[in-house]
Amino acid sequence: MTTNDKQSSPTSATSRLIVNCLPLTPEQQRGFIEAADGVRQEFVADAGNHGNSTWRAHVPEPLRARATAVIGNIPPATIGQYPLLEWLQTWSAGVDQYLAPGVLTSHTMVTNASGAYGQSVSEHMFAMMWALMKRLPTYAIQQTRHSWSDAGDALSPVGGTAVVIGTGDIGSHFAQLAHGVGMHTIGIRRHAGHPAAGIDDMRGFADLDAVLPQAHVVALSVPSTPETHHLIDRSRLGLLASDAIVLNVGRGDALDTDALSQVLHEGMIWGAGLDVTDPEPLPGDHPLWAEPRCLITPHVAGGDHLNGTSEAIIAIARENVRRYAAGEPLHNRRH
Amino acid sequence: MTTNDKQSSPTSATSRLIVNCLPLTPEQQRGFIEAADGVRQEFVADAGNHGNSTWRAHVPEPLRARATAVIGNIPPATIGQYPLLEWLQTWSAGVDQYLAPGVLTSHTMVTNASGAYGQSVSEHMFAMMWALMKRLPTYAIQQTRHSWSDAGDALSPVGGTAVVIGTGDIGSHFAQLAHGVGMHTIGIRRHAGHPAAGIDDMRGFADLDAVLPQAHVVALSVPSTPETHHLIDRSRLGLLASDAIVLNVGRGDALDTDALSQVLHEGMIWGAGLDVTDPEPLPGDHPLWAEPRCLITPHVAGGDHLNGTSEAIIAIARENVRRYAAGEPLHNRRH
Repeated sequence: MTTNDKQSSPTSATSRLIVNCLPLTPEQQRGFIEAADGVRQEFVADAGNHGNSTWRAHVPEPLRARATAVIGNIPPATIGQYPLLEWLQTWSAGVDQYLAPGVLTSHTMVTNASGAYGQSVSEHMFAMMWALMKRLPTYAIQQTRHSWSDAGDALSPVGGTAVVIGTGDIGSHFAQLAHGVGMHTIGIRRHAGHPAAGIDDMRGFADLDAVLPQAHVVALSVPSTPETHHLIDRSRLGLLASDAIVLNVGRGDALDTDALSQVLHEGMIWGAGLDVTDPEPLPGDHPLWAEPRCLITPHVAGGDHLNGTSEAIIAIARENVRRYAAGEPLHNRRH
Repeated sequence: MTTNDKQSSPTSATSRLIVNCLPLTPEQQRGFIEAADGVRQEFVADAGNHGNSTWRAHVPEPLRARATAVIGNIPPATIGQYPLLEWLQTWSAGVDQYLAPGVLTSHTMVTNASGAYGQSVSEHMFAMMWALMKRLPTYAIQQTRHSWSDAGDALSPVGGTAVVIGTGDIGSHFAQLAHGVGMHTIGIRRHAGHPAAGIDDMRGFADLDAVLPQAHVVALSVPSTPETHHLIDRSRLGLLASDAIVLNVGRGDALDTDALSQVLHEGMIWGAGLDVTDPEPLPGDHPLWAEPRCLITPHVAGGDHLNGTSEAIIAIARENVRRYAAGEPLHNRRH
């Protein structure tokens, strides 16, 4: 094998070692072995991972010194114990913790499982939207008091506008669901020239302030970057209509939590559905817990809460293992 | 005007009096007047009705003796005070209370507002389905304890089967929503030969036991009749898969409440979403209130919780007023 542009690894096939921490069935394990004929693979899954929504990765110490690739989310603090590491494939979509300064050397590639979570996370977001529109969290809480009491008007998505901020896997899936129930969908992404499925009207971030007043639903699924920190702040929340709903499933700090608390408390918008918060987990004494217009779920939209997500993660990892062995460029590269 | 088959009223135009109890804007009132040129109309709306989800009908006593038609849900016990009543148009879809033996004489027609509630009720049902699939009622209740805690697996409708029992306005609307998010829809109606929008596979009631084991969602929206009483009983609940969800928005007694409590308590199905109960309101000491797999809303799916429902009710009533004045057959006749 020669070193060239398309090659993902400069290491020779015989010295390469893939340490795979994913919980696999024997058949799935065979799939990985067949995908990377000639590259040594060690399967070290934590038995406790099966059925868990987050998969721990414990790599036995002797393997750390020799691993050239790891499939799984190893603790960032242990990365220094992998001197030969040239590739890390995560089971998560978020890889922020590995991209922090000083964690990785320049010769380590990071690929994520983007694409595995679109259905699960967007469906959770869609469910939160419907629940808020029909005041179901209020009814669930009234139920604990055995109270048969009308909580008031409901909303419908029909004819409304969804402003979908971040139109990757999750945002595009959500837009398709929203479009399917009669919403007009405006997408916001860095490159407005790139279309995405489900988006009727794609705009750049420069148009955000112009479209927010039209929003019945604002659906946030952006990664945590300096540009997205407090992307929705007090002034942008102030642009929303009184029957608008804000949903956040990406990273908590895309939304200014204190500003949101205040706007909800003052009844300036209909409600908010948050699967991510800032800080996270939300501290027990945070005022947002007690805000009746806010539905909070504890970062459970993704993970492997849905059948099919694990299989999708495994399929992404296996294809990249094949590419790694064949010297082809890896998918979902983030570093 | 002559008396013939098409005529809805044997009373002469000059002796007819329509008493309209709906809360109307001046413009809507003009619409009614224009629709029934030549027939006297009195508008007696209760000012307290505006914005309420149920509209009371208080007809001044002098008008009761002369009213030949009433638009609104007058108390059944007062029907005897309307000796000339030949037509009652309700704002509700349900007219059970008027069809009970002894309430009406044979010369009084009853028409309802069927068609006005399909969107509102089916959307509420769809929202309950999504909320249960993603465990949102559980998270809403955990939120009252400020608890950031993963409640476990979620479900997706994609690829699942919805058994839609009753395929009128509400059932058909629900089927279209379910079909739109990737569900296969089996309809159950009295006449399996009649198709309905959103239903992939229409069956008669004789096939109910055969299709229930395939159901991921059972969506009940049937009127209260002797045939539908306890339609879903203990033995039919026992046919359901462990991840099935039961939704009821029609009439509470279509579902055997005690059997449902037991099946939920034993974890034999995933959950239930009820907007109607038997008895209703659900008594404060009923065990169903405390059942974590059950989401209860207090008969709020319809009413005028949704913008557009009132307008739809008014449009149905106005068209029937036009027909009454013109001697044409009325729409939505139930008696």
